[in-house]
Amino acid sequence: MRAIAITEPGDEDVLKVVERPTPDPGAQQIRVRVVFAGVNRADLLQRRGLYPAPPGAPPDIPGLEYAGVVDAVGPAATALRPGDEVYGIVPGGAYADYVIVHEREAAKVPSGLTLEQAAAIPEAFITAYDALVLRGGLTPGERVLVHAAGSGVGTAAVQVAKALGCNVTGTSRTAEKLERARELGLDVALHVPSNDALEATLTKAEPFDVALDLVGGPYLPATLPAMASKGRVVLVGLTGGPFAGVNLATVLTKRLTIVGTVLRSRPLEEKIQAADLLRRTLTPWLGRGKIKPVVERTFAFADAPDAHRLVASNATFGKVLLSMTT
Amino acid sequence: MRAIAITEPGDEDVLKVVERPTPDPGAQQIRVRVVFAGVNRADLLQRRGLYPAPPGAPPDIPGLEYAGVVDAVGPAATALRPGDEVYGIVPGGAYADYVIVHEREAAKVPSGLTLEQAAAIPEAFITAYDALVLRGGLTPGERVLVHAAGSGVGTAAVQVAKALGCNVTGTSRTAEKLERARELGLDVALHVPSNDALEATLTKAEPFDVALDLVGGPYLPATLPAMASKGRVVLVGLTGGPFAGVNLATVLTKRLTIVGTVLRSRPLEEKIQAADLLRRTLTPWLGRGKIKPVVERTFAFADAPDAHRLVASNATFGKVLLSMTT
Repeated sequence: MRAIAITEPGDEDVLKVVERPTPDPGAQQIRVRVVFAGVNRADLLQRRGLYPAPPGAPPDIPGLEYAGVVDAVGPAATALRPGDEVYGIVPGGAYADYVIVHEREAAKVPSGLTLEQAAAIPEAFITAYDALVLRGGLTPGERVLVHAAGSGVGTAAVQVAKALGCNVTGTSRTAEKLERARELGLDVALHVPSNDALEATLTKAEPFDVALDLVGGPYLPATLPAMASKGRVVLVGLTGGPFAGVNLATVLTKRLTIVGTVLRSRPLEEKIQAADLLRRTLTPWLGRGKIKPVVERTFAFADAPDAHRLVASNATFGKVLLSMTT
Repeated sequence: MRAIAITEPGDEDVLKVVERPTPDPGAQQIRVRVVFAGVNRADLLQRRGLYPAPPGAPPDIPGLEYAGVVDAVGPAATALRPGDEVYGIVPGGAYADYVIVHEREAAKVPSGLTLEQAAAIPEAFITAYDALVLRGGLTPGERVLVHAAGSGVGTAAVQVAKALGCNVTGTSRTAEKLERARELGLDVALHVPSNDALEATLTKAEPFDVALDLVGGPYLPATLPAMASKGRVVLVGLTGGPFAGVNLATVLTKRLTIVGTVLRSRPLEEKIQAADLLRRTLTPWLGRGKIKPVVERTFAFADAPDAHRLVASNATFGKVLLSMTT
């Protein structure tokens, strides 16, 4: 099979099309012919050698999510059949013609959704739902703050929070992304062109019950004073850097919770739970139009370097995908 | 009635015995004749003007916990009768002959426990149980780290964690306190004479599932690398100061949770939940000897300044109390 490998740690051009043996599914596994794969910031870090693949994942082939067609099933797999359209997350290796997953890690693509649309769902929406609801304990009617509201996870989080009946405030460095996020349900748009005005801007708003922070760095300390009593800040990314000077008195007196979370390194049982989220919650929501995929652009397989450059540029709204068949 | 008031913000000698009108209970309230009151670090901060009483509490009379005798009940109170021995937490005002509480905020003192012993229970054990179990999600068999294991909350946390069947590691600046904590069930004692060796000492141990941090400041950043995956750090005090430089990459990749919590400012329904903890969990444990009060010293009412000096000295093991009848 063809795959896109990181030939050495480095810039975008270290991504090369390579040939690899086509893998066979184990007992309860399925082989999926990947049609579209999502590009995530974690792939960029992995390419630069800063985020090694977890044990069990291909060390040099990035790709955390896919949509495709079941191509072969293991002898003990019973839930899916060849020809089924499926989507899901993997710990790596989705930039390839085939991925092997446990049959319970994959979810069927709902009717009415193309595979291209489906590939824009798993990582962003599972991350957003898991962070807001499972880690952040979000309940209907609460006030939500989504940093980087125009990102893949941000656009998903705005929609998940709206689907739950919450009031959603989003931040972005780009005013135009906030305008587009309004079409996804964003109630309040906070344009933060620089970090200087961040805390002042956030604390002018009514306090938030849950904040989704994809930025880290200076964003966390600026977010804490804007939280309501018993508020939860869920950290899912560190594009702003890992170091934060935190005033613990705010954490204590407001009884705040700060939760860090990441999908990629989770064990099998949690990957299955993530697939359950796709099956039980997100797929029905997609069917009823409560949430929708947001695709910025789809690149041909061989143009993975350009896809990485676009994600790095920060000029995207929603997801960037790779098409494995063009 | 007599009370000990903070006559102005300042050192220990601003605490003076004053006369105040004896309050009457409202409909569902009870009046408790306080026999012993606990001294807490929060009282010292309040005395210095750094931690104002919450709305509804006497602004100038400290005291967050009491043990005493029901003296009068409101017309709609049915759970308790005059003469009942009770104990509990209040948002302030326990350094006085009488306190008024909702009848559901008080718990009956179990037989076999003196009022002096009872007064050493509420704040320390409710804080420890609430932090470890309700905020930290501690389950039997997990590994627990208790900072300042010789403090009032620390000695309570060691016992609560042992009662739950956990493995408990404690830190202290004082080797002798750790020896005494071993008698309470401490499994592993980590003597940390200074902050320099803190992180190195903590990360030598096996990773912890839950940490109870009464210190804050430099302790939080040193604790995060010592946590297991999905570990929870519960902050209940800031004797080490409020500012912490946190590496969010550790929080994210280990999927850690940092929770701040404080009892004093909670609303009525949560105070009632705290009393339920006393009634349903801690009182039975006291009866079966699974936990026991740890009293460093009891001072006469008029010697409140000396009691504050002793707590400030850090030379205590367990609780310091005031006797309102001597």
